[in-house]
Amino acid sequence: MARILITSGPTRQYLDPVRYLTNGSSGRMGAALALAVLEAGHEAVVVSGPVEVDYPLGAEVVSVVTTEEMLEAARDLFPPCDGLLGVAAPCDYCPVVFQPNKMAKTGSVQSLELTETPDILATIGAMKADRQWMVSFALETEDGRARALKKLHRKNADWIVLNGPEVICESSTQVEVLDRSGTVLAELSGTKREVARSLFELIEANLARPILDGVGQR
Amino acid sequence: MARILITSGPTRQYLDPVRYLTNGSSGRMGAALALAVLEAGHEAVVVSGPVEVDYPLGAEVVSVVTTEEMLEAARDLFPPCDGLLGVAAPCDYCPVVFQPNKMAKTGSVQSLELTETPDILATIGAMKADRQWMVSFALETEDGRARALKKLHRKNADWIVLNGPEVICESSTQVEVLDRSGTVLAELSGTKREVARSLFELIEANLARPILDGVGQR
Repeated sequence: MARILITSGPTRQYLDPVRYLTNGSSGRMGAALALAVLEAGHEAVVVSGPVEVDYPLGAEVVSVVTTEEMLEAARDLFPPCDGLLGVAAPCDYCPVVFQPNKMAKTGSVQSLELTETPDILATIGAMKADRQWMVSFALETEDGRARALKKLHRKNADWIVLNGPEVICESSTQVEVLDRSGTVLAELSGTKREVARSLFELIEANLARPILDGVGQR
Repeated sequence: MARILITSGPTRQYLDPVRYLTNGSSGRMGAALALAVLEAGHEAVVVSGPVEVDYPLGAEVVSVVTTEEMLEAARDLFPPCDGLLGVAAPCDYCPVVFQPNKMAKTGSVQSLELTETPDILATIGAMKADRQWMVSFALETEDGRARALKKLHRKNADWIVLNGPEVICESSTQVEVLDRSGTVLAELSGTKREVARSLFELIEANLARPILDGVGQR
């Protein structure tokens, strides 16, 4: 039995106590992957941003709000895990200044300074042991494969799963799975549940098995 | 039978195809108010931003994403209505520039120019006929009553319902109802369903009845 960490859902970066930057990630693909992991007889640990989706019974769920919190939880939970499915869509930008009270309208243009949040998977990827695998996800709106491959290397992932913005919040999806050389290992489409199952089978057969078998030939 | 318009939920203002500014409004209070309206034997028309909540069967629901869309829908739907419950939390700020492709990280601080979105209730309040009433909601983190009263007058509302950020996404709430003179007409607390029912009873007894009776003494 393996123990798989899944990051899932969006994160939020607050401007003031009420308003925040985020994205439409629903956690549905994370929930589908957790189910595929559990159905294959493994343990699923989900670090999730705020979502309405129900994760499957039997998954351990750690709830977070911000990208920093997701990073911290993932960093704590990853060491004893065999692999990581990084399907979360962490908010990449954080207001430089947090306003402790709700901003009031002034009638004029305001300038909001944004810094980039820490890269969760790059941090995890840098601490990844030889026995551990990592599959990250990329949502790109242009130049998909090239950008995804660059991300894969920046994050030190084994594979990257590429999709487009049209799948956000939908029940169906279509993805390409790329390895470190940029080869398209698979094109998968269907409900998120079907795609999650096919993807995890592919991982078990190619990334996880050598480790489980103690061969370690990666 | 009266016809009541309810604006509900958050709106989103996109920076690029993936990222947006929003807030944690869940639509729960809007759904509770729609139920109270229906249970009192009236028609409920809900203009709602993206939420996961289920509006009651029998409510007409118009789904929108942005503040502009919510304004347009509310403006179209309000004229034949008897009253408006403005419980939505429209996003007040909109990026000056929309990036048509997903912004890529650059490693440096970015400046995001924000303009204020149109004030939905001020627009509706300005077109409100004598036979129509409007109750707006204010979420304040400081100086609550004074700010709420200022909002009431800016929006030309009859009453304003004041609450704090701690009620966002919760199933319970506590509110104060203020009239145009700043008098606290009621303090209500309980589940959102209970508060919605009490609030709508108060409206029916004080704001709506003179109109329904044809007295028009407001």
